[in-house]
Amino acid sequence: MSAVKELQEHFQTLHHIGHAAQYLSWDEAVIMPAGGGEVRAKSLATLHKISHEMATAPKVGELLESAKNEATSNWDQANLRVIERRWTRATALPVDLVVASSLASSRCEQSWRRNRKANNWDEVKPRLQEILNLTKQKAEILGEKLGLAPYDALLDGYEAGLTRTFIDPIFAELTEFLPSFVNEVIAKQQSHVSLKGEYPPDLQMDLAKKLMPPLGFNFGRGRVDTSDHPFTCGDLWDTRITTRFGDDDFLESMYAVLHETGHALYQQGLPEDRYDQPVGGSLGMMIHESQSLFMEQQVCRSKGYLSYVLPILTEALKINADDEKWSEANLIRNVHHVEKGFIRVEADECTYPLHVILRYQLENALFDDALSIDDLPDAWNELMDQYFGLDTRGDFNNGVMQDVHWYAGLFGYFPCYTLGALTAAQLYHTFTSIHPDAETQFATGDFETVVSWLRENIHSKAQLTSGFDRIVEITGKPLTTEAFISHVSQRYLS
Amino acid sequence: MSAVKELQEHFQTLHHIGHAAQYLSWDEAVIMPAGGGEVRAKSLATLHKISHEMATAPKVGELLESAKNEATSNWDQANLRVIERRWTRATALPVDLVVASSLASSRCEQSWRRNRKANNWDEVKPRLQEILNLTKQKAEILGEKLGLAPYDALLDGYEAGLTRTFIDPIFAELTEFLPSFVNEVIAKQQSHVSLKGEYPPDLQMDLAKKLMPPLGFNFGRGRVDTSDHPFTCGDLWDTRITTRFGDDDFLESMYAVLHETGHALYQQGLPEDRYDQPVGGSLGMMIHESQSLFMEQQVCRSKGYLSYVLPILTEALKINADDEKWSEANLIRNVHHVEKGFIRVEADECTYPLHVILRYQLENALFDDALSIDDLPDAWNELMDQYFGLDTRGDFNNGVMQDVHWYAGLFGYFPCYTLGALTAAQLYHTFTSIHPDAETQFATGDFETVVSWLRENIHSKAQLTSGFDRIVEITGKPLTTEAFISHVSQRYLS
Repeated sequence: MSAVKELQEHFQTLHHIGHAAQYLSWDEAVIMPAGGGEVRAKSLATLHKISHEMATAPKVGELLESAKNEATSNWDQANLRVIERRWTRATALPVDLVVASSLASSRCEQSWRRNRKANNWDEVKPRLQEILNLTKQKAEILGEKLGLAPYDALLDGYEAGLTRTFIDPIFAELTEFLPSFVNEVIAKQQSHVSLKGEYPPDLQMDLAKKLMPPLGFNFGRGRVDTSDHPFTCGDLWDTRITTRFGDDDFLESMYAVLHETGHALYQQGLPEDRYDQPVGGSLGMMIHESQSLFMEQQVCRSKGYLSYVLPILTEALKINADDEKWSEANLIRNVHHVEKGFIRVEADECTYPLHVILRYQLENALFDDALSIDDLPDAWNELMDQYFGLDTRGDFNNGVMQDVHWYAGLFGYFPCYTLGALTAAQLYHTFTSIHPDAETQFATGDFETVVSWLRENIHSKAQLTSGFDRIVEITGKPLTTEAFISHVSQRYLS
Repeated sequence: MSAVKELQEHFQTLHHIGHAAQYLSWDEAVIMPAGGGEVRAKSLATLHKISHEMATAPKVGELLESAKNEATSNWDQANLRVIERRWTRATALPVDLVVASSLASSRCEQSWRRNRKANNWDEVKPRLQEILNLTKQKAEILGEKLGLAPYDALLDGYEAGLTRTFIDPIFAELTEFLPSFVNEVIAKQQSHVSLKGEYPPDLQMDLAKKLMPPLGFNFGRGRVDTSDHPFTCGDLWDTRITTRFGDDDFLESMYAVLHETGHALYQQGLPEDRYDQPVGGSLGMMIHESQSLFMEQQVCRSKGYLSYVLPILTEALKINADDEKWSEANLIRNVHHVEKGFIRVEADECTYPLHVILRYQLENALFDDALSIDDLPDAWNELMDQYFGLDTRGDFNNGVMQDVHWYAGLFGYFPCYTLGALTAAQLYHTFTSIHPDAETQFATGDFETVVSWLRENIHSKAQLTSGFDRIVEITGKPLTTEAFISHVSQRYLS
């Protein structure tokens, strides 16, 4: 058997173990009764240990060397590149540390699920400290191997090639631009009649199931469910999104659904014939987030989309639409409403980057040993005050405990949200320069052109090239803040 | 490390891989969109391959030899016995055959799910032939290793020590007794007013969730969902039952729930401190089925239980109970109604054994090469005519395609249903001889005594002794038809 073929079989087996771990994690978040938690954590740790042993087996290194002389097609070469990157990262870490991290993450995330609503920070804090210690250990070992600073080694794990050096000037431009921009938007925006009211969760779920297929979501290969925190998981054959329903604000969960649908379209659009190879997976979280935000922000908050969706949502939610507040103009004012709030996932696209920058700064401080977990809530509160003038003291549920990420061990992940928003804006700018009538199509419920464009340029390409290279290939230049600033300026101030 | 300890760690890891496979199979039956099937089958096959490699690792054989001189406690000795039994069975089979069977079973079961309602036998037939061929291969190899006939080797896999020699006289007694008994019951039973009507599935689910906790089901460690075929899965920390809802016959799904609750109580009552060891699992399917039928037939079809449940079910189903048909007497006549029908899982306890004996006879013929898959539907029809006077020609959905078992590769499983019913009757006879006031307790909603008795005598003992030994220990004699025949005679003819 050729080395290329042997590597493919090896990673095919790894893919199928990863499949198991992925759907068990979904089950843990969506379905599992509380009593199952401890054993589930052990089962996942066992699968991760087996995966790690396979991913770091010495024969992978040997096969990679032999395979370099064999590979012919672009895809095979790209597969070897992705495998080598994974091999380098995986072999850097001792298996005991991988197992300890997996166990600690499962336990901490379960503790967070139990304690978040009760605002019980003290209960979760020692678990978070444990996760941070383990993540720092991992970051140092990885950084040494990759020639990167520890935090950069984490960033690189979420989007290949991402560094603080890349992020800092971009976030500096946004920190310069956004606070005064947000104040200006808030001062000038027209008042809206709130659409809050009583919306039964089952009707909201009906609405979700009506909105997803026209955007291209295939229910023969996917599901939508509810969980504490919306997320997307699964491979292209079975892509699952979750959302959560408040009783009163259907727009929040509707846009959570549209956001996760963007992620899901990426998964469902990956190439079928490479689903079990590393190169056949999606790019990093910056690009993944660009796909969710492309759908949520660029497409589904456009006036064209809102004109299309208004009659659909009033019908699904059984609303008497005669009332003035159900006019298209008032819907637009609701959807384009900008407000300084506590919760990242509820934030509008203008304030959202500031939530991310806050977390990025805190992560930097934690990894520079300039901040302790004990002081984390105070530091959070100070930045909330600085960026939004909001007081979160003592309100952990709306503060430092609002997001699952840190409690699941995901440090270095947050910047990808905002870089994804910038990427979405830059991609959409390119798309509309080719298809200037896009919004007119959205207004008629026609999303064929836009989804095909994403499928062709992003989804079907999987990891054939890097995310940063892909942006240049599609838009003709590296990622900047320009398209995003132009987009929000036009949508919110013109 | 001692050999005992090393074996325990090895089987702990195996348990956690089995945990993964178990909940992924649940997901496949309950949750998964159709598109995920092929990859799920591959993932399960990968897990089964890893399990098989671990279960057959040469070091297990060596450790077993060393451990025999070390073990001290009863439980440790029993654990070694169960491990040795598993080792003997597992090492008998070549890994390629295990993988091929796993893949073929997943595919055949999925094909059955797709084709059952459409009555599409021709589509499923080649898949079933494939499963039968593979199962025959397995049975022959196992039989040779264990010194058993091939079909006995399969029976032994479902309940340790079960053979045709044991079953044949018992089934002969039932075949002698039941047909004329059923005719007599049908001739003499009082007519009932049917309780069929329109019962929304969500109200039926509410009823299920009301009935389960009083019987001891812990929702902090379990769930109830819907699937094509009711089943129970999961360990003691997370025990999941499923049911299915017809629109019109709430009693069918109510008793499916009570049946599966019996299985689930067994799982939830297993010893916590041995959950990850082979000895800590439940006994075979004969004993498992005795636990479901003990609850369903002995407890929940008793007049005491029916008196307790009537107001609960009318409230949950939002029934106006003024109507005469909602009298206790009419409920009893419905629940004790005996009828010759097509469907095993809908059958009453008097006709049920004949459904099982029919399948047992067909399996015997298939494994004796006296019957082909092509002729299976005709043979089915002949026996249905002989036992029930019913014609199933051409109606595969109500005939040979009604049960998942064969399509999931489970040959040799069916006899356990009826042996379980006999065991339940014999256990209940012993229980009521100690607690003659049991039914009075059920009438007040008090199930503490009966569940504690099961917990102490069956559930908490796990696999400390064999199922056949356990029956003798509890009831003072081996399993016979006596208690069952006495039970049905008393309930249906006195």
